[in-house]
Amino acid sequence: MQVAVYRLIIIFVSTVGKSTIPALRPESYAGGFPIIRPIPWVNAMSQLENYIDEQKTRFEDDLCELLRIPSVSTDGQHDAEIRQAAEFLVKQFQQMPLDVELIETPGNPLVYAESAPVPGRPVVLVYGHYDVQPPDPLDEWESPPFEPTRRDGNLYARGATDDKGQMLTHVKSAEAWMKTEGNLPIQVKYLIEGEEEVGSSGLNDYLSKPETAEKLACDVVVISDTSQFSRGQPAITYGLKGIAYFELFLTGPKQDLHSGTFGGGVTNPANTLCRMLASLVDNQGRVLIPGFYDDVIPISERERSQFSTLPFDEQAFMQQIGVKGVSGEAGYTTLERRWARPTYDINGITSGYQGEGAKTVLPARASAKSSFRLVPNQDPEKINENLQQHLAEICPPGIEMDLRPLHHAPGFVVSLDSPYIDAAARAIERGFGRSPVFIREGGSIPIVNDFSDKLGVDTLLLGWGLDDDNTHSPNEKFSLADFHRGIRSSAHLWQELSRIES
Amino acid sequence: MQVAVYRLIIIFVSTVGKSTIPALRPESYAGGFPIIRPIPWVNAMSQLENYIDEQKTRFEDDLCELLRIPSVSTDGQHDAEIRQAAEFLVKQFQQMPLDVELIETPGNPLVYAESAPVPGRPVVLVYGHYDVQPPDPLDEWESPPFEPTRRDGNLYARGATDDKGQMLTHVKSAEAWMKTEGNLPIQVKYLIEGEEEVGSSGLNDYLSKPETAEKLACDVVVISDTSQFSRGQPAITYGLKGIAYFELFLTGPKQDLHSGTFGGGVTNPANTLCRMLASLVDNQGRVLIPGFYDDVIPISERERSQFSTLPFDEQAFMQQIGVKGVSGEAGYTTLERRWARPTYDINGITSGYQGEGAKTVLPARASAKSSFRLVPNQDPEKINENLQQHLAEICPPGIEMDLRPLHHAPGFVVSLDSPYIDAAARAIERGFGRSPVFIREGGSIPIVNDFSDKLGVDTLLLGWGLDDDNTHSPNEKFSLADFHRGIRSSAHLWQELSRIES
Repeated sequence: MQVAVYRLIIIFVSTVGKSTIPALRPESYAGGFPIIRPIPWVNAMSQLENYIDEQKTRFEDDLCELLRIPSVSTDGQHDAEIRQAAEFLVKQFQQMPLDVELIETPGNPLVYAESAPVPGRPVVLVYGHYDVQPPDPLDEWESPPFEPTRRDGNLYARGATDDKGQMLTHVKSAEAWMKTEGNLPIQVKYLIEGEEEVGSSGLNDYLSKPETAEKLACDVVVISDTSQFSRGQPAITYGLKGIAYFELFLTGPKQDLHSGTFGGGVTNPANTLCRMLASLVDNQGRVLIPGFYDDVIPISERERSQFSTLPFDEQAFMQQIGVKGVSGEAGYTTLERRWARPTYDINGITSGYQGEGAKTVLPARASAKSSFRLVPNQDPEKINENLQQHLAEICPPGIEMDLRPLHHAPGFVVSLDSPYIDAAARAIERGFGRSPVFIREGGSIPIVNDFSDKLGVDTLLLGWGLDDDNTHSPNEKFSLADFHRGIRSSAHLWQELSRIES
Repeated sequence: MQVAVYRLIIIFVSTVGKSTIPALRPESYAGGFPIIRPIPWVNAMSQLENYIDEQKTRFEDDLCELLRIPSVSTDGQHDAEIRQAAEFLVKQFQQMPLDVELIETPGNPLVYAESAPVPGRPVVLVYGHYDVQPPDPLDEWESPPFEPTRRDGNLYARGATDDKGQMLTHVKSAEAWMKTEGNLPIQVKYLIEGEEEVGSSGLNDYLSKPETAEKLACDVVVISDTSQFSRGQPAITYGLKGIAYFELFLTGPKQDLHSGTFGGGVTNPANTLCRMLASLVDNQGRVLIPGFYDDVIPISERERSQFSTLPFDEQAFMQQIGVKGVSGEAGYTTLERRWARPTYDINGITSGYQGEGAKTVLPARASAKSSFRLVPNQDPEKINENLQQHLAEICPPGIEMDLRPLHHAPGFVVSLDSPYIDAAARAIERGFGRSPVFIREGGSIPIVNDFSDKLGVDTLLLGWGLDDDNTHSPNEKFSLADFHRGIRSSAHLWQELSRIES
């Protein structure tokens, strides 16, 4: 998953403990902050940067090779390509060389690699994913989704930014260290999965094993699967929404019926589906499920005030997405709704005749995929229970209802007081030539919560993408300049983190 | 279109003027009833019946040949097969021989044929259609839809009952007359169209031409595209619902977006579609569009009383269609709702991701096909206007709405005092060995209104089908016994009508 960003600026003060954002989970550091030590690094870094410059073309070629593999995980039809993408990564690590293994799961395989331990220095776990969203609607792509194409400094392909391109920056930075220095200044572990777009069940299975916590033991997780604030303005994302995604199946008569003969005498599943889904939100998008807002932490006055000072141009936003107006929960600005208020969206709906012309059919079935985006402190399990109860109560006679939760994750906020965030900010400044800003996001990265639960560590969300990268849409792209900046930032990150004693 | 029937019995009293149903359009016969004269017919009829018996197998073979042609009119992809079906009919008439011509229209061709004039006797126009509904969902057919298959005395194929099988009975009855008597006892004109399932625009175009009324001039229209009341109990349908079918297209952002990043900031077309459609009916199916019920003629106490005496078994009905309950407009029985109250049904709906698994997409577009079934005296044009206004009022910012009426027709009731109905009842009694009952129906046959408007004549709806024939559904079928009974009834009908002086 790739979460994009739109013009939120929060001034980042890099001195630990002086962030303008309150520490949202200060208990993570209740034991005191690690000591940061100065070390010499200028010579190593200039050799590294030279290597990264020299290898630009080959790095791009390797990315294109990965992007040509249609490793779509959502439809169960691409098992061979999924494995091909995993094996591509295995080969990448073997060539450095790093120790690497393909870990089988009940679903798609995980790729695990690690560099040599560096005693007394932090251990970092890099997480990414090699699976991608389906490319449909295909006819809206200007170049084929699995034939990476360069246009205007961008590389167009499904997965370019989400997450093959961004993930690969951390692989190539390790290659640069190995080829120039022979080792990394800290131990970096890699865990690259192939089911991120479908709920990471194989990874969750792996994380639940007793031996996994020891193997993945680390001080911090690094993920690049988010966006910069704007072109050339990098960002670190400090909050994400959670999600509760479900599919609702309604079954009426045993087969499609003639709508004239049977209309009025048979409960129509499509009518019922629309009524059920419409009952979930009011006409401004406020969710109507009982208890839905019980655990929502209101947006703080401080945060609202910060949001309101952002140079957010609603007209430009509307022009970007091609609409003449916006709507949403009453009493909140567009930015507040997108970043810090729960929302409900239908992601897909289907029933009856969808061909050309008119068919007078009363459909036997109707179904919809839809999802709530949750803010931190909302419990997806509780939402699912309340939803189930609400829908069951309004399900009319003649309709069988089946509500299937597909995946869910709670929301997430991370403390800005972490020394790892400080190190990341310095690395990004060196890679991009500009300090990052700190933002929240409407998207979900469920794995961030899993790493917090299972490994007890925080995650650095370092986004190299842009908000117009067309993630999950036709014409997905990734800026080639940002691909190389990401590699440089990552190479610096290992160095900056090595200044921390663990 | 095929309208099925479910266990409505209205006792038919065959003496003109003594029907138990009030004359609903007595003005049709304000000029006085034609004289009915007795004529000898026993010898001719026994020769005819012998011919019909002898040709059973060939009649079935001819029907199978027609059913093998996938003349689907709804998707614009079967132009060649449409023409092939029309040409099959042309050949049928040429072989009798009757004068026949293929009439080109802006849409699919009409097949027109006529027998020789018989001065002083009624002229009958037989209407039918050679086009069929699409066969999807294909995987629910037990035998391929366009490979007619005999099972349990039925012929299974798309179009078996709607309307190829039923229509062909009137063609074969004429063949029987021509081959045994050398002529028909009345003039029969045939008008068989290929766009019945998509609104009959080519036929309407033809009917609007000044010369058409003279060419089609007749005393009564005969259509077999309805059902018997139950197996072995034939029926004449005296009322039909009207229809207003439309497609609603909603467009939001210019392309699909990530539902996390943009949710709450962009009006979701799928959410909007559900809310709009849900706003059209309450939770019991009562239509909420302003003015919708203004012109509805309440069901008369007499009709309600008759309905209530019918042996309608709701449990059996539910079992037949495979549901555990029914719902609908409060204050009306299931039969009243199906036959005499206006209804609203979604026929198809589509938006966003419909593949396997979860895709976190905020769809760019959403659309639905849906239709109101109208009772006599409701004006479809007025309904469309009110619908357009209602939807425009609730369309939220950020959504472009396009409401396209696909086709419409008013409801219809015919006087039971007509001598033609009397003749038809006698013919059916001879063909089926049992008097027909008189019923109303929830389906629509828009052409019935057109014949009334353009030719000034009533229509006899003589249904040979059964209510479980799976019209518009997988596994459509037609009873072979009823096919042959229909041919016999039709052969008798020409004889019975020849007793009327015109």
